[in-house]
Amino acid sequence: MRRKGLASMAAQTVASSTVASTTNPVAGDTTTVVGVDLGPAAALSCRECGHRVPLGPVFACEECFGPLEIAYDFSAYETEELRARIEAGPANIWRYAPLLPVPADVADKPNINPGWTKLVKADNLARELGVEAGKLFVKDDSGNPTHSFKDRVVAQAIEAARAFDFTTLSCSSTGNLAGAVGAAAARAGFRSCVFIPHDLEQGKIVMAAIYGGELVGIEGNYDDVNRFCSELIGDPAGEGWGFVNVNLRPYYAEGSKTLAYEICEQLGWKLPDQLVIPIASGSQLTKIDKGLQELIKLGLVEDKPYKIFGAQAEGCSPVSVAYKAGHDVVRPQKPNTIAKSLAIGNPADGPYVLDIARRTGGAVEDVNDEQVVDAIKLLARTEGIFAETAGGVTVGVTKKLIESGLLDPTLTTVVLNTGDGLKTLDAVAGTGLTATIRPSLESFREAGLAS
Amino acid sequence: MRRKGLASMAAQTVASSTVASTTNPVAGDTTTVVGVDLGPAAALSCRECGHRVPLGPVFACEECFGPLEIAYDFSAYETEELRARIEAGPANIWRYAPLLPVPADVADKPNINPGWTKLVKADNLARELGVEAGKLFVKDDSGNPTHSFKDRVVAQAIEAARAFDFTTLSCSSTGNLAGAVGAAAARAGFRSCVFIPHDLEQGKIVMAAIYGGELVGIEGNYDDVNRFCSELIGDPAGEGWGFVNVNLRPYYAEGSKTLAYEICEQLGWKLPDQLVIPIASGSQLTKIDKGLQELIKLGLVEDKPYKIFGAQAEGCSPVSVAYKAGHDVVRPQKPNTIAKSLAIGNPADGPYVLDIARRTGGAVEDVNDEQVVDAIKLLARTEGIFAETAGGVTVGVTKKLIESGLLDPTLTTVVLNTGDGLKTLDAVAGTGLTATIRPSLESFREAGLAS
Repeated sequence: MRRKGLASMAAQTVASSTVASTTNPVAGDTTTVVGVDLGPAAALSCRECGHRVPLGPVFACEECFGPLEIAYDFSAYETEELRARIEAGPANIWRYAPLLPVPADVADKPNINPGWTKLVKADNLARELGVEAGKLFVKDDSGNPTHSFKDRVVAQAIEAARAFDFTTLSCSSTGNLAGAVGAAAARAGFRSCVFIPHDLEQGKIVMAAIYGGELVGIEGNYDDVNRFCSELIGDPAGEGWGFVNVNLRPYYAEGSKTLAYEICEQLGWKLPDQLVIPIASGSQLTKIDKGLQELIKLGLVEDKPYKIFGAQAEGCSPVSVAYKAGHDVVRPQKPNTIAKSLAIGNPADGPYVLDIARRTGGAVEDVNDEQVVDAIKLLARTEGIFAETAGGVTVGVTKKLIESGLLDPTLTTVVLNTGDGLKTLDAVAGTGLTATIRPSLESFREAGLAS
Repeated sequence: MRRKGLASMAAQTVASSTVASTTNPVAGDTTTVVGVDLGPAAALSCRECGHRVPLGPVFACEECFGPLEIAYDFSAYETEELRARIEAGPANIWRYAPLLPVPADVADKPNINPGWTKLVKADNLARELGVEAGKLFVKDDSGNPTHSFKDRVVAQAIEAARAFDFTTLSCSSTGNLAGAVGAAAARAGFRSCVFIPHDLEQGKIVMAAIYGGELVGIEGNYDDVNRFCSELIGDPAGEGWGFVNVNLRPYYAEGSKTLAYEICEQLGWKLPDQLVIPIASGSQLTKIDKGLQELIKLGLVEDKPYKIFGAQAEGCSPVSVAYKAGHDVVRPQKPNTIAKSLAIGNPADGPYVLDIARRTGGAVEDVNDEQVVDAIKLLARTEGIFAETAGGVTVGVTKKLIESGLLDPTLTTVVLNTGDGLKTLDAVAGTGLTATIRPSLESFREAGLAS
């Protein structure tokens, strides 16, 4: 698994790979295979040119350098049997193991088992936003083990890392991902080595360091960290290292499909009419669309139209800007927003997001930092959900889309909250005491607090 | 519902109460009743003298001033029917509605729906502690909506508050409880007014304030806050106010039973052999014992011995000290520990805890702050669970009990983590980067990080 530069890596790794193809005990596929068991995952397929290569730790097409993604063989599934099997599964993402690039016995392996988070019927929020009662839902991923949706994707990367005999799990990160990788690696028995800018806030360092893996500060900014990681992947020093969002990215990214599966199952195996999804790299939005399409093809939900809306912060809104300008490509921005978990100025999946928003009849919108904070507070005081800034972005965008008439308040709408407010306390630091009084009834009455 | 001083409150409220008794649609009880429907809850019963009074917002016995707790009528339940009903219930505490003081349709009302948190098979931790593989479990309550077990108890108080027509939810708090009350009240549609010492850390204030209720800082320490709340309960200014852990305490406390139910159901309807439970007021430990006893009586688990171990921090160890000295009463201490969520120097349920530990053949043990921090790190690096200081206390005590031979490492053991490390970052603030390097492979190699 010796690798060179990033550019030559795709062809190189595939050419020298001994992981030829995969067996499929889940779907009953009897293809003769050695080595890799990733369930229904049949191959890697280029999203641009469709070229297929065997499963392996590669992420770019050897023909056109397009992104590789998982191609599945679901042909053996019978709809009602599959539905029953999912419903009898564990209360985490592994209930969907038959639809993921993981072995059939995945639930028996040590993993932090994220998912099956709450889909909250948000009638109080609906009232404030003018949405019909019973039609607005918040998919609240703050309930995951390290309190962000990143646990879903890392959980997939862990199983791929096992399949490819990696011994060290790694990533570059400025926050959520570092904790998710640290926690999952610890439990799954991998060494972890996570790279972050050396001058991150102390709180974020503690959240990532607590799991006991290597946490390496790089003297430089996040771009420097990323550049260094790319160098390391091509170097013998990185032998045996799985970078969850680089050489394991095709597997990792599939974790976001579980959000689509859960939303539909929790709605009683129904597609929502509208979804509002945050955009960082855009991967999550595209994989949710992929998941919905799979459910339709498998007959698990009725085939009907749905609209996907993308949400960005104004201070990092390259996809929203491109959408509004009618462009097909995304011009990179330099991020400047409190929604740091969405602050990717050059989103890799931006063009795919534009395509999905247009194809489904959705839109891409953005809100400014003040609107993000207002939306965090709105969600907290109506539904008791304390969202990360990314959740403020989706709720804020939902409000804006309703006001502009793009989102129909009479239809079933699911808004994603992908992280936890405890991780972005700084963004709402102004929130404080509503009164200070002396410990006396007199002082209490003076403050006008009696009911 | 006009009340006077605390001492006269029990008799006063019962005498003037119009909430006479309760109907029981769950158990099929046909007692004629007006007003209060709290499911199988039949009455309030004094834990000291057994005197029974109708359900109402009271907490102290009018005869002997002993603590009141809920008495149930479970007589109509058939074991296998009940088990099937629970298993078909929602993935939260309301699957156990037939065993809680809540109406049968509780799951349809707005509540933050805590519970059904993970019971993690902790084989990595077991290895480090010398416990037999497959025998050690961590019940991880950091997965609750506001990331502590307090959501379980507040959820019960909310339903009692509805039943008694309270309009404002309140409590005194220094942390977890304030957030739990704020969130639950917001979603359930109650006004909330929470009292805290005015000089709490800014982070804790934000976590409580974000839900938009009244958050009142009291000029004084926590004792001053408590004293003021007691005054308010007895005053007309507090009319219509439900203090979750005072006048709603009998209902509130029952929420901890759900930990016992979930642990047994998640073990395949089996009692664990040993449980390690943190002690603050001691209420949680006593209610878990109550829950286990109920499951035995209902035939949902086999009747066999189990041992309950209590865990305290050395800097606030009144129950542990009393246990070791062979006393039946607990001498108050002035708390001085990083485990602030357990820092109750005069635990109300201390004597009951002593009784349970002795009756079941368990013990009460304590660990110092350094051991708490070590245990937090141990749990994080073995199982990927970042525990609050209270979780450091239980894991640390488990280690100590194994070393001293009091806890049998060959038996099934469940250790509770009742909160989330993100809320007590200060306790592990020393945790940081393992290396700092320049963004170059040379610097990486120099640091000895290559695998």
